[in-house]
Amino acid sequence: MAGKTGRGNFFEDFRLGQVFEHATPRTVTGGDVSLHIALTGSRFPLHSADPFARALGYRAAPLDDLLAFHLVFGKTVADISANAIANLGYADCRFGAPLYRGDTIRARSEVIGLRENSNRKSGIVYVRSLGFNQGDETVLDYVRWVMVPKRDEAAPAPKPQVPKLPDAVAPENFILPPDLDLANYDRAAAGSPFGFNDYAVGEKIDHRDGVTIEEAEHAMATRLYQNNARVHFDRLRQGAAGRLIYGGHVISIARTLSFNGLANGFRIAAINGGRHVAPAHAGDTIHAWSEVLESRTLPGRDDLGALRVRTIATKDRTCHDFPGRIGDAYDPSVLLDLDYWLLMPR
Amino acid sequence: MAGKTGRGNFFEDFRLGQVFEHATPRTVTGGDVSLHIALTGSRFPLHSADPFARALGYRAAPLDDLLAFHLVFGKTVADISANAIANLGYADCRFGAPLYRGDTIRARSEVIGLRENSNRKSGIVYVRSLGFNQGDETVLDYVRWVMVPKRDEAAPAPKPQVPKLPDAVAPENFILPPDLDLANYDRAAAGSPFGFNDYAVGEKIDHRDGVTIEEAEHAMATRLYQNNARVHFDRLRQGAAGRLIYGGHVISIARTLSFNGLANGFRIAAINGGRHVAPAHAGDTIHAWSEVLESRTLPGRDDLGALRVRTIATKDRTCHDFPGRIGDAYDPSVLLDLDYWLLMPR
Amino acid sequence: MAGKTGRGNFFEDFRLGQVFEHATPRTVTGGDVSLHIALTGSRFPLHSADPFARALGYRAAPLDDLLAFHLVFGKTVADISANAIANLGYADCRFGAPLYRGDTIRARSEVIGLRENSNRKSGIVYVRSLGFNQGDETVLDYVRWVMVPKRDEAAPAPKPQVPKLPDAVAPENFILPPDLDLANYDRAAAGSPFGFNDYAVGEKIDHRDGVTIEEAEHAMATRLYQNNARVHFDRLRQGAAGRLIYGGHVISIARTLSFNGLANGFRIAAINGGRHVAPAHAGDTIHAWSEVLESRTLPGRDDLGALRVRTIATKDRTCHDFPGRIGDAYDPSVLLDLDYWLLMPR
Repeated sequence: MAGKTGRGNFFEDFRLGQVFEHATPRTVTGGDVSLHIALTGSRFPLHSADPFARALGYRAAPLDDLLAFHLVFGKTVADISANAIANLGYADCRFGAPLYRGDTIRARSEVIGLRENSNRKSGIVYVRSLGFNQGDETVLDYVRWVMVPKRDEAAPAPKPQVPKLPDAVAPENFILPPDLDLANYDRAAAGSPFGFNDYAVGEKIDHRDGVTIEEAEHAMATRLYQNNARVHFDRLRQGAAGRLIYGGHVISIARTLSFNGLANGFRIAAINGGRHVAPAHAGDTIHAWSEVLESRTLPGRDDLGALRVRTIATKDRTCHDFPGRIGDAYDPSVLLDLDYWLLMPR
Repeated sequence: MAGKTGRGNFFEDFRLGQVFEHATPRTVTGGDVSLHIALTGSRFPLHSADPFARALGYRAAPLDDLLAFHLVFGKTVADISANAIANLGYADCRFGAPLYRGDTIRARSEVIGLRENSNRKSGIVYVRSLGFNQGDETVLDYVRWVMVPKRDEAAPAPKPQVPKLPDAVAPENFILPPDLDLANYDRAAAGSPFGFNDYAVGEKIDHRDGVTIEEAEHAMATRLYQNNARVHFDRLRQGAAGRLIYGGHVISIARTLSFNGLANGFRIAAINGGRHVAPAHAGDTIHAWSEVLESRTLPGRDDLGALRVRTIATKDRTCHDFPGRIGDAYDPSVLLDLDYWLLMPR
Repeated sequence: MAGKTGRGNFFEDFRLGQVFEHATPRTVTGGDVSLHIALTGSRFPLHSADPFARALGYRAAPLDDLLAFHLVFGKTVADISANAIANLGYADCRFGAPLYRGDTIRARSEVIGLRENSNRKSGIVYVRSLGFNQGDETVLDYVRWVMVPKRDEAAPAPKPQVPKLPDAVAPENFILPPDLDLANYDRAAAGSPFGFNDYAVGEKIDHRDGVTIEEAEHAMATRLYQNNARVHFDRLRQGAAGRLIYGGHVISIARTLSFNGLANGFRIAAINGGRHVAPAHAGDTIHAWSEVLESRTLPGRDDLGALRVRTIATKDRTCHDFPGRIGDAYDPSVLLDLDYWLLMPR
């Protein structure tokens, strides 16, 4: 930092092992739940209704997994990615303790990798970020890496260190809520009869619905998460590029669209990887489709299974023909390619 | 349903007496109350302040009657009107148990009428929809009818059955909150000295104020109600027609505008009928006026009376000259014609 | 008022000493907190997290000072400024009892000054407005003056009476929360190491960030406060002038931007004066800078001090060169000039 006004960190400001206790803890309330519904349209019942959640062993409706993710991500921005050129990826993301209304969430990140780019103008910073509730339980834990410019091109490069990251979170490492029991899972209340056993590996699902994103909507969502990255807010500064939509908002929209086809995917257990293939802007209409990549039972659980799902979100294009990779490239409509594990009743 | 992605029901999918337990129960919180205020501007004190509500015998400020209506309506969409060509009308709508912050609402509909159209391409579906709280008390109960296309024009038509519906809900059928007592109703806090005895049948009131609706506003409102009808969200699909505003949002805006003239109409006891005369789009500015159609005292109640009110909402036109029907047609500015009963202190 | 539809008050309707008990008390919840964050992006931890607030002696996170201000201001509009030509200024504004989630706020105003303009077409009305919680504690107390047209130019003018107002609230008149103790103030959680002792009188800070305001955002904010001034909502009526942004929304945005440089200014103790130099409209991008005007320790308090700060907000112009007054005029980009006292840990 230079002076009282934070300019954020540059590549040479990061050190391996450095820990950031991020600012602005946040007590979450029904206001966050309602706004998340109003901004995304989520209809997953676990996050919508206390009785549904209690029937599964939760003490109330937990906040949407992705809302927890965005709240933690938002806190990391000022320290990690205020100057980022690009948000390159996510990996090894596990969801832990449910986050309930009234809980307070805070975030911490540790630098786990650094590698200067060959042009010496920037480098890649890898961080593991964690979100904790007021009782110090881990709510979520993930790795992301971002490209960050150097303040001074002549600054010496650190020894390159790239963390070894799993291609996917192993199901045996999932963190299930302690009293989770799906014996009383109500598929009618959830809106679909289809459970774990009804999905086949390789199955593709066009989620059919679409939603156009407005400037006020993505800006409100991003502010709700107290994510202050300027590219989302300042039209003057963005000039012809326009304001960029926070990539997490596209993830939430894609998740919401996936309800039509994956309604009983009641919890995201883990995110294996995510790539923002192209930026999104206000006025874009998002559609999505998914493919079942893998199907796994869990040891000692005959009430639920895990589906590994890849969801692709597109811009201004329906997904009836499953646009995705074309050789090495993506169909030009693709915005997001997300690989994650869903829990589903069997 | 064909496959895992719901395509909604077509005319030939409905059967007389069929019951839908609609998906996604919803626990309501202060977040819903605040968003409803932020999206409509409502200033009716019963829904705004706990002490005001307690002075009338409620245990806290109940949610706005129309917010309860929209939450129930929203749940019915996926099963009843996902493919609707037009939402034709409402009738016989009674508001029952107050809905409080912390309550969970769910919805059920029964098919009470079916009539194929003469072109054999579509038909009219009549449903009675009910909203329940977590204690199985009826929060609201109404009939609506929608025009739904047939999947297959050759499908056989059911025997036509059109339910007999009352022109208006009879005041003796109103459901009053059990401990309602207006002895301590505070007209200063409510913003107007005018009560039941100050209104005359035939009186017309120009509500004077106007409000322009933005795309983000109607989309957020409609998502808040978990109403997933595509016409409200997907600009790509809508093409030149543009995204349609959920008709219920226009009803809520008209109700809010009516505060300036009907401030002490503290509760909607019933909706006798409603007609969306024309669709509304983002950018439209809504104005409204009302006429007192009928005035009724209620048996055993000297603290309150019921006014039957017709409220007309227009688009891009002030209501100083009470635009409405012109012969058989409506003034081209009219969007909404709503007939309902208001409770007012005497 | 003429008839049941309020037309608001005109200059000749006001009398010195007249008291208005304003309509629509309001119970505040987490919904208001979340919406305020979503609409402004505030990151001040006192209003964001219960544990942070409890560590300072509050019983929970109090609502943002400006949110309380807007809620009170909004209630005064229908009686005081529904017909206002211009909102001319604020002075002598003190924040008192913290406003907590679950509290109910109501407002009262007293006319403390009247002065007809020399053109006899309008006059200036001075009111002292107060906000109270449900326990009748004063949450806030301020003077504002507005220019209001006369209904009838021939109406006789009252004897001119202009209240004597302080240039600034004296620090000995601040109302501190009773158990306030900054011994456990956590600067890391607050996002900045800089406290009272790190700021010098005359220091200028460019807050660097910018935010573009959308039509839906300012309209939602203004409705959240139940402020019904038509100029903010009715595009039809506004014609070429367009809808005006409620000046208070610009104040909240400026306060939020000031976080980047004044993060530990955890409470606004008082507003000495404020001037809306030019109107703001949707599409404007707001930037801000501040100057430290004065620095005061408080008797018997070695844990905190007060900084008198002037914050300038601009439209479509960065603040790296501190645009402000140029001789008698302002730089044409300036929207807001606000003079206030911040409390900061020492």
